[in-house]
Amino acid sequence: MSKLKLFALNSNEPLAEKISQSVGVPLSNASVKHFADGEIQIDLEESVRGADVYVIQSVSDPVNENLMALLIMIDALRRASAHQINVVIPYYGYARADRKARSREPITAKLVANMLEMDGSARVIAVDLHADQVQGFFDIPVDHLNALGLLANYFIDHGINDNVVAIAPDHSGTKLARKLAEHLDAPLAIVDSRPGDENIGVIGDVEGKTAIIVDDMIDTGQRIVESVEALREHGVTDIYACATHAVLSAGASERLSKLGLKKIVVTDTIDIPEEDRLDNMVIISVGDLIGRAITLISKNESIHPLFD
Amino acid sequence: MSKLKLFALNSNEPLAEKISQSVGVPLSNASVKHFADGEIQIDLEESVRGADVYVIQSVSDPVNENLMALLIMIDALRRASAHQINVVIPYYGYARADRKARSREPITAKLVANMLEMDGSARVIAVDLHADQVQGFFDIPVDHLNALGLLANYFIDHGINDNVVAIAPDHSGTKLARKLAEHLDAPLAIVDSRPGDENIGVIGDVEGKTAIIVDDMIDTGQRIVESVEALREHGVTDIYACATHAVLSAGASERLSKLGLKKIVVTDTIDIPEEDRLDNMVIISVGDLIGRAITLISKNESIHPLFD
Amino acid sequence: MSKLKLFALNSNEPLAEKISQSVGVPLSNASVKHFADGEIQIDLEESVRGADVYVIQSVSDPVNENLMALLIMIDALRRASAHQINVVIPYYGYARADRKARSREPITAKLVANMLEMDGSARVIAVDLHADQVQGFFDIPVDHLNALGLLANYFIDHGINDNVVAIAPDHSGTKLARKLAEHLDAPLAIVDSRPGDENIGVIGDVEGKTAIIVDDMIDTGQRIVESVEALREHGVTDIYACATHAVLSAGASERLSKLGLKKIVVTDTIDIPEEDRLDNMVIISVGDLIGRAITLISKNESIHPLFD
Amino acid sequence: MSKLKLFALNSNEPLAEKISQSVGVPLSNASVKHFADGEIQIDLEESVRGADVYVIQSVSDPVNENLMALLIMIDALRRASAHQINVVIPYYGYARADRKARSREPITAKLVANMLEMDGSARVIAVDLHADQVQGFFDIPVDHLNALGLLANYFIDHGINDNVVAIAPDHSGTKLARKLAEHLDAPLAIVDSRPGDENIGVIGDVEGKTAIIVDDMIDTGQRIVESVEALREHGVTDIYACATHAVLSAGASERLSKLGLKKIVVTDTIDIPEEDRLDNMVIISVGDLIGRAITLISKNESIHPLFD
Amino acid sequence: MSKLKLFALNSNEPLAEKISQSVGVPLSNASVKHFADGEIQIDLEESVRGADVYVIQSVSDPVNENLMALLIMIDALRRASAHQINVVIPYYGYARADRKARSREPITAKLVANMLEMDGSARVIAVDLHADQVQGFFDIPVDHLNALGLLANYFIDHGINDNVVAIAPDHSGTKLARKLAEHLDAPLAIVDSRPGDENIGVIGDVEGKTAIIVDDMIDTGQRIVESVEALREHGVTDIYACATHAVLSAGASERLSKLGLKKIVVTDTIDIPEEDRLDNMVIISVGDLIGRAITLISKNESIHPLFD
Amino acid sequence: MSKLKLFALNSNEPLAEKISQSVGVPLSNASVKHFADGEIQIDLEESVRGADVYVIQSVSDPVNENLMALLIMIDALRRASAHQINVVIPYYGYARADRKARSREPITAKLVANMLEMDGSARVIAVDLHADQVQGFFDIPVDHLNALGLLANYFIDHGINDNVVAIAPDHSGTKLARKLAEHLDAPLAIVDSRPGDENIGVIGDVEGKTAIIVDDMIDTGQRIVESVEALREHGVTDIYACATHAVLSAGASERLSKLGLKKIVVTDTIDIPEEDRLDNMVIISVGDLIGRAITLISKNESIHPLFD
Repeated sequence: MSKLKLFALNSNEPLAEKISQSVGVPLSNASVKHFADGEIQIDLEESVRGADVYVIQSVSDPVNENLMALLIMIDALRRASAHQINVVIPYYGYARADRKARSREPITAKLVANMLEMDGSARVIAVDLHADQVQGFFDIPVDHLNALGLLANYFIDHGINDNVVAIAPDHSGTKLARKLAEHLDAPLAIVDSRPGDENIGVIGDVEGKTAIIVDDMIDTGQRIVESVEALREHGVTDIYACATHAVLSAGASERLSKLGLKKIVVTDTIDIPEEDRLDNMVIISVGDLIGRAITLISKNESIHPLFD
Repeated sequence: MSKLKLFALNSNEPLAEKISQSVGVPLSNASVKHFADGEIQIDLEESVRGADVYVIQSVSDPVNENLMALLIMIDALRRASAHQINVVIPYYGYARADRKARSREPITAKLVANMLEMDGSARVIAVDLHADQVQGFFDIPVDHLNALGLLANYFIDHGINDNVVAIAPDHSGTKLARKLAEHLDAPLAIVDSRPGDENIGVIGDVEGKTAIIVDDMIDTGQRIVESVEALREHGVTDIYACATHAVLSAGASERLSKLGLKKIVVTDTIDIPEEDRLDNMVIISVGDLIGRAITLISKNESIHPLFD
Repeated sequence: MSKLKLFALNSNEPLAEKISQSVGVPLSNASVKHFADGEIQIDLEESVRGADVYVIQSVSDPVNENLMALLIMIDALRRASAHQINVVIPYYGYARADRKARSREPITAKLVANMLEMDGSARVIAVDLHADQVQGFFDIPVDHLNALGLLANYFIDHGINDNVVAIAPDHSGTKLARKLAEHLDAPLAIVDSRPGDENIGVIGDVEGKTAIIVDDMIDTGQRIVESVEALREHGVTDIYACATHAVLSAGASERLSKLGLKKIVVTDTIDIPEEDRLDNMVIISVGDLIGRAITLISKNESIHPLFD
Repeated sequence: MSKLKLFALNSNEPLAEKISQSVGVPLSNASVKHFADGEIQIDLEESVRGADVYVIQSVSDPVNENLMALLIMIDALRRASAHQINVVIPYYGYARADRKARSREPITAKLVANMLEMDGSARVIAVDLHADQVQGFFDIPVDHLNALGLLANYFIDHGINDNVVAIAPDHSGTKLARKLAEHLDAPLAIVDSRPGDENIGVIGDVEGKTAIIVDDMIDTGQRIVESVEALREHGVTDIYACATHAVLSAGASERLSKLGLKKIVVTDTIDIPEEDRLDNMVIISVGDLIGRAITLISKNESIHPLFD
Repeated sequence: MSKLKLFALNSNEPLAEKISQSVGVPLSNASVKHFADGEIQIDLEESVRGADVYVIQSVSDPVNENLMALLIMIDALRRASAHQINVVIPYYGYARADRKARSREPITAKLVANMLEMDGSARVIAVDLHADQVQGFFDIPVDHLNALGLLANYFIDHGINDNVVAIAPDHSGTKLARKLAEHLDAPLAIVDSRPGDENIGVIGDVEGKTAIIVDDMIDTGQRIVESVEALREHGVTDIYACATHAVLSAGASERLSKLGLKKIVVTDTIDIPEEDRLDNMVIISVGDLIGRAITLISKNESIHPLFD
Repeated sequence: MSKLKLFALNSNEPLAEKISQSVGVPLSNASVKHFADGEIQIDLEESVRGADVYVIQSVSDPVNENLMALLIMIDALRRASAHQINVVIPYYGYARADRKARSREPITAKLVANMLEMDGSARVIAVDLHADQVQGFFDIPVDHLNALGLLANYFIDHGINDNVVAIAPDHSGTKLARKLAEHLDAPLAIVDSRPGDENIGVIGDVEGKTAIIVDDMIDTGQRIVESVEALREHGVTDIYACATHAVLSAGASERLSKLGLKKIVVTDTIDIPEEDRLDNMVIISVGDLIGRAITLISKNESIHPLFD
């Protein structure tokens, strides 16, 4: 059996460390630097010949830098005779560009998939893709891990599952909210914001309940702001928010800090800068989930148990 | 500019005729037969050398026969030196197999896309794909037409847009129902059926309203049956159903005939057998929509106006 | 070394059982079902991660169903991280569509090969392909097994090799008849039927001999009917027929039953329905031949001995 | 419409000239030279930007030189922005390596097809391929021309179609001999030579008839020598031989010169050296056949009339 | 003939304007923006259906942003049915990563080529690639333009070709310096800097001559600094520097400003920020060169005259 | 771990024997013959199923024969189920055709790379490629070995490193000469021959020194002739020549024999015919270098130590 090697690129080193501890294999030595002109320089400091390599990189901000670093790393590994290149992408950037919503749009999530395949990736390990269909953008195996269970468990473990309602912050999020609702055995409501209409509606009963807004990612946080507003107008006092991916762009943290949320529960698929870690923010690690997946995969065992 | 030729395979000849009339080009001669052992035999009865060919085939029941006939036709066209092979798929079978919902599932919608591309298709023209992301399963251009507007117009043209509510028959259908709601300037409600729970909930206000259940397809009709039941329990009297694709399998017609629906509005992307055409069924043709798209594409003009 | 797993799709389960017994590995659990609308649903009920998988499927009637089931199965296996997907095709449907005999014909046998390769097959194991050149339709290894020896041995074992003549039922079959003639150390004759000519000729001496008509497959049986007629007119009394693949379409069995053939010797590459099993039909199994091939392949040993 | 350009590589310039005259387009300037170390040097002496190019090259002896020259030429044309590269291969070398006849053989005819496709060929125009299935080795269009009709016409035009019999020099050639037999409305016989048996049989009646041996190519001529011998023993006096491709290797001409054949009718798909042109050899040109095909193809008209 | 459209991405808009003026076709409307999280958003504001598109983008700093914008643009154009996508890359970033100089290095210049091809580019137009071999990284046509002639002409036009010597700033640059030397009919010298040796040698006679240092790009300028130093030590007073690509990273401008160079002659393949434009810097535009190439290519005329 | 097998094609059997001895694995049985018509026939006389195969072939004169033999061999190995096909190319013919030096030239070195990859090669092992960038023509791993060190060691071991100067016979060779200069801690000079100028210059100080001309290959030897002449005119008495690849075409040996060189040091990447082995020629074997590389690669160990 081939030797297992873990490499972390530089988007999320703390998570890579946690994965490494879970797998019980230290991170191999490699560095990603930039030349003066902005070109990326990869240094693989140890042989990968014949090894089964797992490269860990979140395609988070700076998205294009991180993506290119990953692609260049795969090129280097392939030319260096790695046996199998497994790409671990805790946060898959560009995942929302998964269809042509308007005329002449790119489908960048597919472009990313094509580039990863062409480059010689043998497998992708991803967490809570924006749409399940992104799995089908690949022809190589995608091991799609699910962090929603970790988020749900937080609420259950802290007793926040009584008289709660799962909230989809918009209609696209209904499927996800429904999944959380099932986890918590709770009802479901949807925030209904329409273009050109100042009043934001809420479909479903929320009055007097504890609301848990759920989304796959928190980007600018604007949708949560609107949801909180609408929920308050519909008689909700205690509001939680949760999401797998803490993108937190464009001053999202500041925006969220003013909302009076009980807790904001996210994971560490993206490395959250110190200044964005709010007091009411709970960060749950996906390190062990990914680590156990890698361990099972490397032993050719089913990862099905991870979904229980 | 290359000569335009239209070919109809045998899944939906009436629609092909309508498309042909809209384009103003007669259907070219070809036949699809079966040998005694079940193998498909294609006969192209005229030269396609250098022509821009549009092949019209719905991948409807018998799904595998129709899909294979399409793939074999493309092979014949390519080898016969067609200049460009455009594939018109009013109903894209297997579109629901667009992700791994459980371990070890195939993603057949992607397999179909791969086969169409490998075979030499230059473009796909499709109508209301089950998920928009299926566009991204292709790297060739997909001209994705929208029949929801035709359905919405039916209701508007018949004055059925007062005090109505758009109904998603399950949480996955929320996005589509929301689109219809926007067309009709109406509110939205979602039928919430949970495994193991006999009571089917309705999220959102429906009482006293006229309900329009909307889905991309009606397959067995079971979801509509449940939705009607739930809506009745929540005080709805007048119920309509609409969908782009009338799959109508497993006795769906009989099932629907007992529901007391005011109207079932569908399109002709699938050729509905005479015996399944219920008295309260309204069939709107997509023939002119597809025909206008082909005309614009063949003239290298934008199909954007079709979306207004 | 990777774990070996055998899967049988539903075209020929009895043969799959025989292969399984020969290899000494039980069939893995998987099911092929159809949804109400005709779409195929594959259920892999056990993990295949890292396994060397052999999928057994004859592309026999219903040809397109069986072919699509195979393609979808391969998609599922590939996405489920099978290490190597070996496709065992005892009967390769569409094999006769291997060239453009007339203008604008497809070459469906190549299309099938392209689809199998694109889908991720690592190897094809086939039996008596209609033309040897079909091996070259693939770029992956094709292990091409030969059942003609089994048929020849039947005649030798039963003492039917004295004063016999091998009969090609038409000019295309001369090569195969010659091979049988060499096995039996016998002469060769060819039935010469010309379009527009009612008299069917026989080239070569047959009078007073025992004739053994040989073909790679018996489809409608029409060619055998004509051959028997011509042979009778040329003074032949005892006639046998043999073929590897018992396609038996369009009432072939009934047609054959009236010919007064001494024996019809075929193999079980296709599962022959009970009602088509004539009293004078001898069915020789290729199960052990395929099983031994799989065993040797899985041990990286030459399959050359199977040809002795 | 793109400009048509004809290029001749150096295997068969006289034929290229004839094709050029038939098309009415002069040969473009290009040269194929060898560097001192044996590497091929291609010089395209005029611009091909945007042109529809037809490159004429027979893959005849020296086979590997001629094949590589063709592949390098295609590379040059593609990089020089030719619009469409059509490859005209009057004689397709390696065509007999079209299957694995024994264990571990290459299928070089497929390798050649793969190389031509990968290199950017848009179409192949070939004459009398050794097996029709070689068409299926390609996924691009193959326009497969038929010179057998030209050979048959020679016999008809010279009144050599009375009391004749078409002879297949071995069992593999039966299909071709049958075709000639149909052209001449004549019977058919097969030379039956078995390994280890000194006596060469003849299947079918030949005594007292004029025999026309037909094959797709004459290579060493050994098969014709044996056929003539066997035919003479079976009472045939007047013997003709014909074939599309005059490979004439290993002293074939000398061997044939001693056989007392009435005529040896071949075509100019291969440029026959002066010293191999026997007195009784008739060389029919395929130049006009290929030329008319190119003319029709370039006008996007069906080449079907060429088969009448 | 298809419509020609020019699009400029945002790396070098002034050059795109010059190209547009030379071609006589205005730039089409498109915008490249960034979402708050750093993802690139492309807006094609007009139809490109059936058009021959030329996209102009230098892969200069920020390299990865500019490269990804180009790749996403191509994806959008392809899906929007552009007929042919021509990629104009005045400065090809990562060109120096064209080989494995040490173990386990990537070859990023090839990765970039692979991504451009996979994405659907039909042609690349580039200027003075770091190594000519990068042309061979592509299988599509590369129209490789040469700006060295423009640089040489500057010196000739300004009478700086008497008693001059062309200087290669290191041994890798000898080929380029030799080309300049031929343009100017001048001798050649090479700066020879060895690791671990403080003294920088100069190979060839330079004393008393006017030196023109030439390189394909000026990146940090460090090599020019060392060359000037060495030349001064070898008795050179008047020194010029020239290069096609003004990368100017890591404070290059400041470094160059202190060298007392007579002139620094560069082109505008990279948009030089105002603050980096030194007083002694001469910027020659390649706009007309590229524009004329596009014009010729779009008319299917040879671009050979551009090399005279 | 898979079984290692070594195969030698017929370009350089003595070197293959040396490699075999270094690896400690005997050469497997295979033969390369030619049919009478010039087609290549490969016979693999033992099973390669599941083996890691290394095929040794120099693409030396006859270049096209040797290249085709290699490609056909790979086809045979792939179809015979070899596990991994490693291609050992001590001399990579066509390596100089690595760019378009003039309009409409092919890039044959890339074509060769494409053919090797398409055919199923998993890795290339090469020695001193003409340009390092040829590595990037491949997407599979290239293990690029360096024989310059062996050449340099010859001079060091024989005390020829005092008062020496490394000579580049033209400007393109400066990089290589510089590498030798570093090995020998010597200065560097470049022969400067200009078209149309009879006088051949020498850049750098050579007078009174011992000159070592270095090139990657000696083809016709013309460049060495000119270099020797120029060096003599500049006061050099003792001249050595060295190169990795002894192409020796067009009477090179005779030409070199008249130059009065002290020694001509080359390697055995090409099998030098007895008649070309001059008395002053020293042939150093790369057999052990390649053998050690194969041994390390087969054990999945880094080949980095080979570069020390």
